[in-house]
This record gives sequence, C-alpha cells and structure tokens, in this order.
Amino acid sequence: MAGALLFSSRLDDPVAWSKALAALMPDLDIRVSPNLGDPAEIETALVWKPPPGEMAALPNLKLIINLGAGVDPLLADPTIPPHIPVARLGDQPMAQMMSQFVTFAVLRHHRDIAMYQRQQRARQWRYELPRPSYECQVGIMGLGLLGGTAARTLAGLGFNVAGWARSPHTIDGVECFHGAPGLAPFLARTDILVVLLPLTKETRHIVGRDALYCLPRGAKLVNCGRGGTVDEAALLAALEDGHIAEATLDVFEQEPLPPDHPFWGMEQVLVLPHTGSIAIPEISARDVVDNIRRVRAGQPLLNVVDRVKGY
Amino acid sequence: MAGALLFSSRLDDPVAWSKALAALMPDLDIRVSPNLGDPAEIETALVWKPPPGEMAALPNLKLIINLGAGVDPLLADPTIPPHIPVARLGDQPMAQMMSQFVTFAVLRHHRDIAMYQRQQRARQWRYELPRPSYECQVGIMGLGLLGGTAARTLAGLGFNVAGWARSPHTIDGVECFHGAPGLAPFLARTDILVVLLPLTKETRHIVGRDALYCLPRGAKLVNCGRGGTVDEAALLAALEDGHIAEATLDVFEQEPLPPDHPFWGMEQVLVLPHTGSIAIPEISARDVVDNIRRVRAGQPLLNVVDRVKGY
Repeated sequence: MAGALLFSSRLDDPVAWSKALAALMPDLDIRVSPNLGDPAEIETALVWKPPPGEMAALPNLKLIINLGAGVDPLLADPTIPPHIPVARLGDQPMAQMMSQFVTFAVLRHHRDIAMYQRQQRARQWRYELPRPSYECQVGIMGLGLLGGTAARTLAGLGFNVAGWARSPHTIDGVECFHGAPGLAPFLARTDILVVLLPLTKETRHIVGRDALYCLPRGAKLVNCGRGGTVDEAALLAALEDGHIAEATLDVFEQEPLPPDHPFWGMEQVLVLPHTGSIAIPEISARDVVDNIRRVRAGQPLLNVVDRVKGY
Repeated sequence: MAGALLFSSRLDDPVAWSKALAALMPDLDIRVSPNLGDPAEIETALVWKPPPGEMAALPNLKLIINLGAGVDPLLADPTIPPHIPVARLGDQPMAQMMSQFVTFAVLRHHRDIAMYQRQQRARQWRYELPRPSYECQVGIMGLGLLGGTAARTLAGLGFNVAGWARSPHTIDGVECFHGAPGLAPFLARTDILVVLLPLTKETRHIVGRDALYCLPRGAKLVNCGRGGTVDEAALLAALEDGHIAEATLDVFEQEPLPPDHPFWGMEQVLVLPHTGSIAIPEISARDVVDNIRRVRAGQPLLNVVDRVKGY
C-alpha cells in the first residue's frame, strides 16, 4: 500500500491543498496535522514551519516538501532528520506572482507615489515631471527562479536592470554582477534595490550598513525575500538619516512584525505582512505529486535543497 | 527662410524642448510664448493649452502640434483656426510610460495595497492569501496607442484582460468588445476598469451611473485618460455606497482638483495630479521635427487629429 502524505502548515489552506492533490492523485491518503493517524504510514510531508519534532517522529518519511521557496525556517529546526531529502516549491506561477509584487513596488517607488499620497493628505495638487523608466536603475539581489524572473519582467517593462548573485549568471538585457567583488559596483549603480536572496549563513545581514551606504543617497529598498538578509537596525538608521529614501518591506527579522516596531509608523516605509508570493494549490500540487511519484519509483527528485548551501 | 516654431505651454519645460529640437534641427528658430517676435514668421506651434487667441494671431501658421495625446482642451478653444491641421504627440515611449502607470494602479488594486496601508496605520499584521492574476479581470476602455499598449502589457504580465472601444479591434490575448452593444457585457466581466478614452462628445460621462452599476459590486476604477469621461458625481455616489470599492484617479473634470473636493479625503481613492504619462522631449522631438519637415515638403502629416471624431 502506498504511503500517506502529511500536510502541516498554520498558514496554507488544508482544504484547497487536499482538493488540488486529490484531483491529481485520487488515491492519495492525505492527513492534516495534528491528526497524523499511524505515523509509520506517512511517506511524504508537505510543510510550512512544522512543529519541532513532528518530522522526526515519522519513521518511514522519505521526503519533506517545503510549502514555499524559503527553506531557512525548516533547515533551522535541528529536529529535522538530516538524511531525509528536502524539496521546495518554486514554479513559474509563484515566480510570476513575485514578479508582479516586485513590479508594483518598483513602479510605486519610481513614480513617487508615497510623495503623492502625502500631498493628497494635504489636499495639495503639485505635479512633478515623471522620469522615464530607462533612467531608473533597478538592482535585483538574487537571480534564482524568483529574482531572475523579476529581473526579466522589469527589463521588459523598460527599466534599466542589473542583478547580483553569489555565482555568475547571464540574463538577456540585464547586467549581471557576482560574488563579493561585484557587490559594491552593483550597489553603486542602483537607484532601487530589490532583495530576493535566500537566507543562508552567507546572506544573513548582507544588506547591512556597508551595503546600504554603497547605494547612492536617496536610493530605495524593496525586501521581499527573507527578513534576515537585511540588518534592520542599519536600515532604520539609514532611513532616519535619509540615505535610504523609502522602503517596501514584506519580510522581517521577526514575523509578525512586533506592534511597537518603528517601521509601522514610518511614512517612508510600506509594511506588508509577507504577501509577496504564495504557492497556488491548483498549480503547485503538480510538482508535489510529481515528486511523490519519483519517491515511489526511486527516481531523482525535483527542486531538492542543497542543505550545505542552504537553498 | 524657413519658418519659426512657437512653443506655448505652462506645463512643459521650454528649455528641455528647445535643446531636444535644436539637437535634431540646429537651424530651427524657436520662440517661447509670450515672446513671439514677428507673428508672421511662425510656421509651427508646439502647444499645451495655449492662451485663447494666440494661435489665431499667427497669419502663416501651418501646423499645430499638441504636447500630449489629449487634444480636447485645444479643440474646445473656438479661437483655434479651423483650417489649420492639428497633430498630437503619441509615441511608443509615451505609451510605455502610461502602461507602467496603469500596471502600477492595477497591481496596487489587485494586491489590496490600500487595505494593507490601513492595517499599517493600525500596526496590524493580517495576511490575506494573494489571488493569482489570471483570476483578476481587467477591462481597458480605449484601445488606441495608449490603451492598446496597456492591454498588451497587462496580458503579458498574466492578467485576464479585455478591451472596449468604439470600433472593432483585434489584440492577441485580449478579448475585444466594441460599440454601444458591447459595453454592458464588457463591464459585467470587469473587476478592475481602466479608462483610457479620448474626451469627445460621445465619451463625455460615458462612465456614469449606468456604466458603474454594470460593473460587479466591489469593482475598482482607474481613470488616467481624461477627467470628463467619468461622471464624478456618479462615481462619488458609487464609492460612498461601496459599489465601487476603490479608485485611482489621475485626471478630473476640473484640474487642479479643487481643495474642497471630497475625493481628496477618501481613503479608498488615490488622487494623483495628472501624472500618468508625458512626452519626453528627447524622444518626442523626433516626431515634431518629422512633421515640420513634412509641412515644408508638402507631404502628409503624422498623427493628425480628426476634428470631427475629436481624436
């Protein structure tokens, strides 16, 4: 008898996921945490921040699939058995949804909408000549599926786009920088910085005081990757002294953002509750089912995370 | 001796335009209103809402070029000599800038950013699952250069886009409706309505009470064409009763929007000071110079307005 799938997330919708998975694999035995039934029957776990210890208690678990692109919370849990492969979701529709989010944030900064909203509150009609997008230098940190798709989308819309990643990349119409030596020149030419990096040992606080002050004065920041890649104390100081003019923050070092955090009250910061992109069950279920079939057939798995690199 | 060009606008930058025109046609004699010199020497006028009577006082004027796509203020001036051809600016970069504006406004409505801004003011972290863009039905009224480009851009980004115009159009990936019989079905399927129509006798208040209530309850409206196409009193009532959930208004029946207008104070309305798109001198000067050469050579002119249709 084929093994069961355990769904364990406080954020994703178990009904929508069960429906989407059942449509593709009608005989799949789906259990929703905390109702595991017999733990020995569970073969695959589809999870977002499962309770510590839950995975370790599944003796026949063969695959953990992370409900999203960012695996850092999962890998940070020491109770996750090290021999079980971890895959992450990351399909073109998720990348498209993130690109739309990035496009919104970049256009909003480029068109100075925050300034116009202040003017609206003052009932003030004051027109500034809009600048053409090709004069606006967008820089994307992280050129994986999400960052690469966002870079292509913004270049296609007419922005002057560069990208930075740990390793070399080639993207048509996008100037690509890489590694530690490429970071300062990449930042120096960037008016709007978009951070779409995974959170790893190497990227924690990579956007700190040094990086922020490599950006030209008046630069704007969009973080929709992981909160820990940006040093929030350094960002707060740079926003307060005006070096960073505005920020759109969708991710934070601590989520939910604590109610007393200064970001909430800053006019130049748009605070969003981690809403950049999600896996859509009807679409992402295809990759989940594909990986279940691969586990059963002993075939190579899709989207497996490199635990050493951390993404 | 070749005739002079009169630049007459209170909104556009005469220095940038003079520089851009001189780069392409170094011997062009450029006069900036109100310093006309000898009015008989003026052959072409490049204008945005010139003072009434100014054009009529130019005995050898051969062409008026409108500094923008919307010619309604110019055509509404009875002192504009009826025998002089009127051309308008409208090039691909202007259309691209407008598409970027429309993309911003549609994404902002689609991603419920106004709701998240209210939550930010209340320091409230509350997450709503984002919906995929293909479930969001955008409708574009006006399928000329600006509307057609916006429709293609939004369809390319993944929205479900339809368009409506006075006459039939064909755009790949966009369902096109036309004429009076096509209006109600077009509106009935539209979640976010974008108005990019020229202002003519036929389009004045075309988005009135009837049209607004053809939209599904909770629809959102973006007007970045001409203020007069939307009946503002009807829109105000529809916003107040919640039938229209939100609006982005860049154009108004009266501009500047009077300080006591209720739109300024409405949380569900984003008021912008007619900032959707402009002609960029360095780019649009090419079409101006091309038309000057055509006037002198007696060749057919580009982008001539049909004064009967009004656009």
